[in-house]
Amino acid sequence: MARIVQKFGGTSVGDIARIKNVAKRVKAEVDRGNQVAVVVSAMSGVTNQLVAYCTEIAPLHDQHEYDAVVATGEQVTSGLLAIALQELGVPARSWAGWQLPITTDDAHGKARIMSIDGAGIIKRMEEGQVAVIAGFQGLGPDNRVTTLGRGGSDTTAVAVAAAVKADRCDIYTDVDGVYTTDPRIVPSARKLDKITYEEMLESASSGAKVLQTRSVEMAMKHHVRVQVLSSFSDAPGTLVCDEEEIVEKELVSGIAYSRDEAKVTLVGVEDHPGIAAGIFGPLAAANINVDMIVQNISHDGTTDITFTTTRTELDRALQVVKDNMKVPYKSLSSDKSVVKVSVIGVGMRSHAGVAQTMFKALADKNINIHVISTSEIKVSVLISEEYTELALRALHTAYGLDAA
Amino acid sequence: MARIVQKFGGTSVGDIARIKNVAKRVKAEVDRGNQVAVVVSAMSGVTNQLVAYCTEIAPLHDQHEYDAVVATGEQVTSGLLAIALQELGVPARSWAGWQLPITTDDAHGKARIMSIDGAGIIKRMEEGQVAVIAGFQGLGPDNRVTTLGRGGSDTTAVAVAAAVKADRCDIYTDVDGVYTTDPRIVPSARKLDKITYEEMLESASSGAKVLQTRSVEMAMKHHVRVQVLSSFSDAPGTLVCDEEEIVEKELVSGIAYSRDEAKVTLVGVEDHPGIAAGIFGPLAAANINVDMIVQNISHDGTTDITFTTTRTELDRALQVVKDNMKVPYKSLSSDKSVVKVSVIGVGMRSHAGVAQTMFKALADKNINIHVISTSEIKVSVLISEEYTELALRALHTAYGLDAA
Repeated sequence: MARIVQKFGGTSVGDIARIKNVAKRVKAEVDRGNQVAVVVSAMSGVTNQLVAYCTEIAPLHDQHEYDAVVATGEQVTSGLLAIALQELGVPARSWAGWQLPITTDDAHGKARIMSIDGAGIIKRMEEGQVAVIAGFQGLGPDNRVTTLGRGGSDTTAVAVAAAVKADRCDIYTDVDGVYTTDPRIVPSARKLDKITYEEMLESASSGAKVLQTRSVEMAMKHHVRVQVLSSFSDAPGTLVCDEEEIVEKELVSGIAYSRDEAKVTLVGVEDHPGIAAGIFGPLAAANINVDMIVQNISHDGTTDITFTTTRTELDRALQVVKDNMKVPYKSLSSDKSVVKVSVIGVGMRSHAGVAQTMFKALADKNINIHVISTSEIKVSVLISEEYTELALRALHTAYGLDAA
Repeated sequence: MARIVQKFGGTSVGDIARIKNVAKRVKAEVDRGNQVAVVVSAMSGVTNQLVAYCTEIAPLHDQHEYDAVVATGEQVTSGLLAIALQELGVPARSWAGWQLPITTDDAHGKARIMSIDGAGIIKRMEEGQVAVIAGFQGLGPDNRVTTLGRGGSDTTAVAVAAAVKADRCDIYTDVDGVYTTDPRIVPSARKLDKITYEEMLESASSGAKVLQTRSVEMAMKHHVRVQVLSSFSDAPGTLVCDEEEIVEKELVSGIAYSRDEAKVTLVGVEDHPGIAAGIFGPLAAANINVDMIVQNISHDGTTDITFTTTRTELDRALQVVKDNMKVPYKSLSSDKSVVKVSVIGVGMRSHAGVAQTMFKALADKNINIHVISTSEIKVSVLISEEYTELALRALHTAYGLDAA
């Protein structure tokens, strides 16, 4: 007997026929003698419709009301899946976020889960009842419904898995696992059997959209074993787990990329202590996400500072820089046609030369690197968007990731 | 300053443009210096869609899950209207049934309101915040969402009005008031300025669909003054109120009709004490609504018993009668093409001859009466459905209700 949390995304529950299929998958897990909790997203398209309603009434709407409106999508799916399970003879009941409850902070629209009371559903799971939980939502300290932000159902699933001490959290999605890189661009990409939390985290924050960053963070923190697999096939997926569970570690596990990048350069910034804080403080205060930051060495007392942000936030970022009178600069430029390519692997910790392989592979294809940033298990470069496919294929080959 | 509860039905909030219009109506009431709470239905079509989902998965689905699914429609509208009000500068917040809370019994799918905690919203209304409340729903003793059954938002509105001691409860709908009879059938029908709770109650239970029966019962019990008016015009509506508020009472205030009728006749039932209980006990146990009942005098020790039920329940009713071995009968017949026509008026209490006027008017048109039943302020007859329009026009004229 194992205790399993299953999570099904919007396309997996996109219509009634698919909800019935999901019920069969859940039943199969129950029939194997396992205790099961299920976390569901809204039927595909529903969340977008509800968000569009809010935005149509008022582009800048109250996040409390946005949450009240948008969270209903998952509530509908949870009730429908409970009915579908009962129809198959599987005892089941739905749970809205406020019912468990899943308590969150009060950051409406992008709340963080504070705690989940698992006692109620553990008792029912032990009695054979499947808990069908509405993902993406919780209850704020003000007794109002909160949502966790896009992709939040993954986080709900991992948090529930941690709360009920599940043996595994299966995230069903429309891809059948985690690949060495995007197979739509690199046909020789391979599906990984296992990947470490750290690598998955770097992949997620580097643009791979398989799992939401926060859900991986939570899985890593609580040692929740997460399997990513397809709800449309029976193939085994990719297990995201502790490094110790992976016997044969590869030097590089994957190449990620993100097109949602924009580059901003301030030329001729007066170079003195506190200048970086002077620039990035106002950006942080405006809640603008800054990713890569590069400062060149100064000459003639001035320096150039380049940073990246998301394309949607670029205009706001530029405005903040312009309005910021405390940091004078000579000129300001920006570029939206850039892409971030990242090479990721826990093997880097113990192997030198990984970055050099990347730089050489790109140089061989005459691809110019705008910005470089590195972490313990990742090397990222910013390049012109037009080279995306070429760079991914070259790097995939250079690191020996191509399928045999 | 008055305290007003406004209720808007599905067609009034049918799309975003209409929700914005509703917000303007609410604002107008606020601008008059009044304290306002609003109760909303789901956007038209949404509830039907959600019910269809449940039924598509399992025709006989768990009512707990049905409630969890279907109640989301009103939650969406309440959030959207709150956003629309805020956009007009009116402080507002949405309330789901479980948040106030509106507590109900545990009869999922057709729950009854037990109590409403009005303290929270009264305080906010006094501070100028409009409470936008999701209708049709509440919180059961099991901490799960309940729904009140179709038309339940009217009941929510009246219950909220009672809880906050409102001066008036305005029910906005797609008709502009209560008419002497259905104006689509009788063009000379007149809109009433006022009608008593008792008359409204008899109208509702006699087929007039303006207000839900339970909402009128609740209004009568708590002396909530209810105004029925159109959300698409600025004309005053019809006030439903205590008899004392109506100076000039008419003998008959309206002619109602219901097509949702079916007649069942048991011929040759052995006539002895307890036979009615023997027939109607099992029907009640099967939760089948029986309306009119007629038992003829017996001859040769047997009698005929006729009763009416709704058309949708006819097949189940016949099955219950057939399965009931304790009451033998010679033959069983049923008829779905019947209609109930009712003449209603508190004036009947003090005036004789009202029923006679009805019988004569119908006889003059050669309309045969199948069944008759009477109450203190109502005379109902069952006739063949094909005579519906003819009967309504004849009665409307006979009672002097035609517009001048």
